[in-house]
Amino acid sequence: MNAQTKTKAPSVMNGLNMDDLFALIDGVKRDPANAMTNWRVTTAWQGQTRSRTEVEGFGIAGQTVARRFAIDIDEPSELGGENRFANPQEHLLAALNACMTVGYVAQCAVRGIALESLEIETEGEIDLRGFLGLDPAVAPGYEGLRYTVRIKGNGTKEQFAEVHQAVMATSPNFYNVARPVLLKPTLVVV
Amino acid sequence: MNAQTKTKAPSVMNGLNMDDLFALIDGVKRDPANAMTNWRVTTAWQGQTRSRTEVEGFGIAGQTVARRFAIDIDEPSELGGENRFANPQEHLLAALNACMTVGYVAQCAVRGIALESLEIETEGEIDLRGFLGLDPAVAPGYEGLRYTVRIKGNGTKEQFAEVHQAVMATSPNFYNVARPVLLKPTLVVV
Repeated sequence: MNAQTKTKAPSVMNGLNMDDLFALIDGVKRDPANAMTNWRVTTAWQGQTRSRTEVEGFGIAGQTVARRFAIDIDEPSELGGENRFANPQEHLLAALNACMTVGYVAQCAVRGIALESLEIETEGEIDLRGFLGLDPAVAPGYEGLRYTVRIKGNGTKEQFAEVHQAVMATSPNFYNVARPVLLKPTLVVV
Repeated sequence: MNAQTKTKAPSVMNGLNMDDLFALIDGVKRDPANAMTNWRVTTAWQGQTRSRTEVEGFGIAGQTVARRFAIDIDEPSELGGENRFANPQEHLLAALNACMTVGYVAQCAVRGIALESLEIETEGEIDLRGFLGLDPAVAPGYEGLRYTVRIKGNGTKEQFAEVHQAVMATSPNFYNVARPVLLKPTLVVV
């Protein structure tokens, strides 16, 4: 492939359009305000333990991009629900894994590593004495989570180890779970 | 309603079967091992920025309860995806809100407060310089999240304020986001 062809066909790696990715990076280098994103959801109680979360859009570089999605969540019958959807703890693990997945895909792509497959299995324990308010010394959430990443592609073991470290350092949801996020609530009694 | 009728009809509050809830609490008081739950998901890359997370069951009191759910997650086209599903940051907020929703419903129920409606709106900013690895001083995730709870029911302002505090103290996903969770990874190069 000569240089002229290269500039015409978009370069795709692991399904990512690399021209778009480098354009995003260049835009952020030019002006850090291009890096700012805003994420917002609204969740409405649907009765019993069910909720529906609605996404209407997100913000990037000061612009709002309209997108509509609904996320339904319930509890198993053992925990008071009707078991119609996965529960909040499973959704949190899914959000963590999905974010790290994007991280592995992108970190491999910028190194020219073609991925064949990627799977992340994550698990942890929650002691219900916390949620039930029976013992304030018991953490209500996960004290720890274990996860196994199974990765296959044309990188070396050393390259995959480097990618693995980079994902831990840069994944937004790895950060959101591993580090404390300041939660600022406002209660409105209607 | 006389005492005899009361013992026959299940007592329902905010859609929750209160007999079942108190039986769960009694079981945990009898043996703390009944409080232990295990949550596990497996996420497989679907190409580009898409992933599918599968739930096969959860563990409670040493028993595995089979349940099958799939959670699909993507990224918006501005971030390299095809925008087919909500993204990992939105799923994390949905998981947080859904868990707190269950908390408000249960905390109100045990106080005899009938809820009419409950809505939680949550938002925060992420600076992409973290994810893109352009500045190690920039947090890759949310430094803070703001949320507004709009609650309506037959409780007093004081009761709702007490419920609000109890949810912050006992919600598993409030804890998982607000407090550091230790993440233990294993990398397997296939």
